[in-house]
Amino acid sequence: MLSVVILGTGNLAKHLFTAITETDGAQVVQVVGRNRDRLKWFSEKTAISNDFSSVVEADVYLIAVKDDAITEVSQALSHKEGVVAHTSGAVSLTAIAAERKGVFYPLQTFTEGKKLDFKSIPLCIEGSSPEDTLVLQKLANGLSDNVQQIDSDQRKKLHLAAVFVNNFTNHLFGVGEEICLENQLSFDLLKPLIKETAEKVQSMSPKMAQTGPARRGDQKSMQEHLKLLKNKNQIALYTLCSEAIENAYEKEL
Amino acid sequence: MLSVVILGTGNLAKHLFTAITETDGAQVVQVVGRNRDRLKWFSEKTAISNDFSSVVEADVYLIAVKDDAITEVSQALSHKEGVVAHTSGAVSLTAIAAERKGVFYPLQTFTEGKKLDFKSIPLCIEGSSPEDTLVLQKLANGLSDNVQQIDSDQRKKLHLAAVFVNNFTNHLFGVGEEICLENQLSFDLLKPLIKETAEKVQSMSPKMAQTGPARRGDQKSMQEHLKLLKNKNQIALYTLCSEAIENAYEKEL
Ligand SMILES: NC(=O)c1ccc[n+]([C@@H]2O[C@H](COP(=O)([O-])OP(=O)(O)OC[C@H]3O[C@@H](n4cnc5c(N)ncnc54)[C@H](OP(=O)(O)O)[C@@H]3O)[C@@H](O)[C@H]2O)c1
Ligand SMILES: NC(=O)c1ccc[n+]([C@@H]2O[C@H](COP(=O)([O-])OP(=O)(O)OC[C@H]3O[C@@H](n4cnc5c(N)ncnc54)[C@H](OP(=O)(O)O)[C@@H]3O)[C@@H](O)[C@H]2O)c1
Repeated sequence: MLSVVILGTGNLAKHLFTAITETDGAQVVQVVGRNRDRLKWFSEKTAISNDFSSVVEADVYLIAVKDDAITEVSQALSHKEGVVAHTSGAVSLTAIAAERKGVFYPLQTFTEGKKLDFKSIPLCIEGSSPEDTLVLQKLANGLSDNVQQIDSDQRKKLHLAAVFVNNFTNHLFGVGEEICLENQLSFDLLKPLIKETAEKVQSMSPKMAQTGPARRGDQKSMQEHLKLLKNKNQIALYTLCSEAIENAYEKEL
Repeated sequence: MLSVVILGTGNLAKHLFTAITETDGAQVVQVVGRNRDRLKWFSEKTAISNDFSSVVEADVYLIAVKDDAITEVSQALSHKEGVVAHTSGAVSLTAIAAERKGVFYPLQTFTEGKKLDFKSIPLCIEGSSPEDTLVLQKLANGLSDNVQQIDSDQRKKLHLAAVFVNNFTNHLFGVGEEICLENQLSFDLLKPLIKETAEKVQSMSPKMAQTGPARRGDQKSMQEHLKLLKNKNQIALYTLCSEAIENAYEKEL
């Protein structure tokens, strides 16, 4: 049985805690965080502490604090014998100030209070030695059916790709909502389309799934759309996305 | 029982045919199209014709041809007594050259060969008179639990919003795929994230769901991401989307 200490009490810390608690092969022996209010949530189910100098011994330390604070928090663990891993897509393995370092990055967007099936979440792991990787692999295998060994360089690219498909996509959903609200239309009307757009690329390359005026090179429809838009940001986004799509398919038109 | 003629044999024509065939209140009495190969698919289940001057009598004519051809095809129906409706989000009611006009627009992205649950698809209808609207409403109610009366102006705005949340979003998925492939990473890694990004806004406003470097105003992460990008279109998209997100949340930073 692997023993795990979680550092941090935020969104991911809660999701990790729940997922680890539900597996057989590992248990959370302590949660350490600076936020007393949020520590309470964990206190019924495991030991808690808000003192980073009194962290107990464990096989794995999962640092789930905000990216900027990873190095600082890892310093409190520099003399531990277990593997000290952060959970960030954007931060290097080397940010950790401990002998046995690792990364334990779940490639997913977590929402406070919304449970997800951890089994299908890609867990990207990296260790500073084969032994460290093995320990993280063991923990990861208990949580997910999709464990990938990915080094810091590749993980950063993956995180960048995630920004496009998650953060920027979500912004486009927001533009869709804006246009609806400006025209007394319910955003609910777009929800089935949003779901199916994401569903489609689960089994088809986005390149194959691309449709719309820009894909068809339909200048008339694009001009009409631009006339309907008032907001400068929306116009710039419409123009750039359309151009990008036209460029991508130029040869085929 | 409403009788329906479908004009066109493309992607939407097939989906409409299947959905109408499965309801009790309506039946497809004929499918008319210029494409003999594609007409064959319908020929076992209903009457077919490739002659637009031999369209039979029906309560509703659904024109599911490409947007530019709607007016032309409707001319062949100008003396019919039934309601002649097109199925496009972008085209006005007035494009139809018939006495009894209508629009029957399913707000969804259809994929050839991939069956969808029509019940949850928003069906946006419009008729040139209350009686025409009523006929379309009756047909629509048999197909979907989400029937909306929406006029041509509002429908165009809705279609524009759909371009953002469907076409542009899909392009971002494509950029994510590109970044993966350029770095020997499987696009499969991003799929659960893509699904959850769409899932999240089913119950939460995109404004609330927004995360990422631009949302946090994290200039350092954004600079690092830009350094990783080589492709001009990707850089332009990254910059513009980040700016748009920063602008949207400026007041809160
Ligand atoms: N959320 C996701 O969807 C997701 C997905 C994959 C990876 N991650 C990674 O998970 C990590 C945590 O993210 P999150 O979303 O859980 O963030 P979050 O909900 O904002 O929580 C951040 C946590 O960090 C703590 N913290 C911040 N600065 C600290 C410091 N100087 N010392 C000690 N603790 C500090 C916060 O404590 P206070 O409450 O006192 O501020 C809080 O417990 C990040 O590395 C992130 O990249 C997140
Ligand atoms: N696909 C969707 O997801 C979707 C969603 C909502 C609404 N719609 C609307 O549905 C309508 C059809 O779209 P689709 O996706 O089904 O397109 P599609 O698969 O490309 O099919 C287009 C159909 O139009 C026919 N056609 C084109 N020009 C014609 C002409 N001059 N005379 C007669 N027939 C002609 C084509 O015949 P050939 O095979 O001979 O070219 C084909 O049967 C459009 O108004 C579109 O806006 C589509």
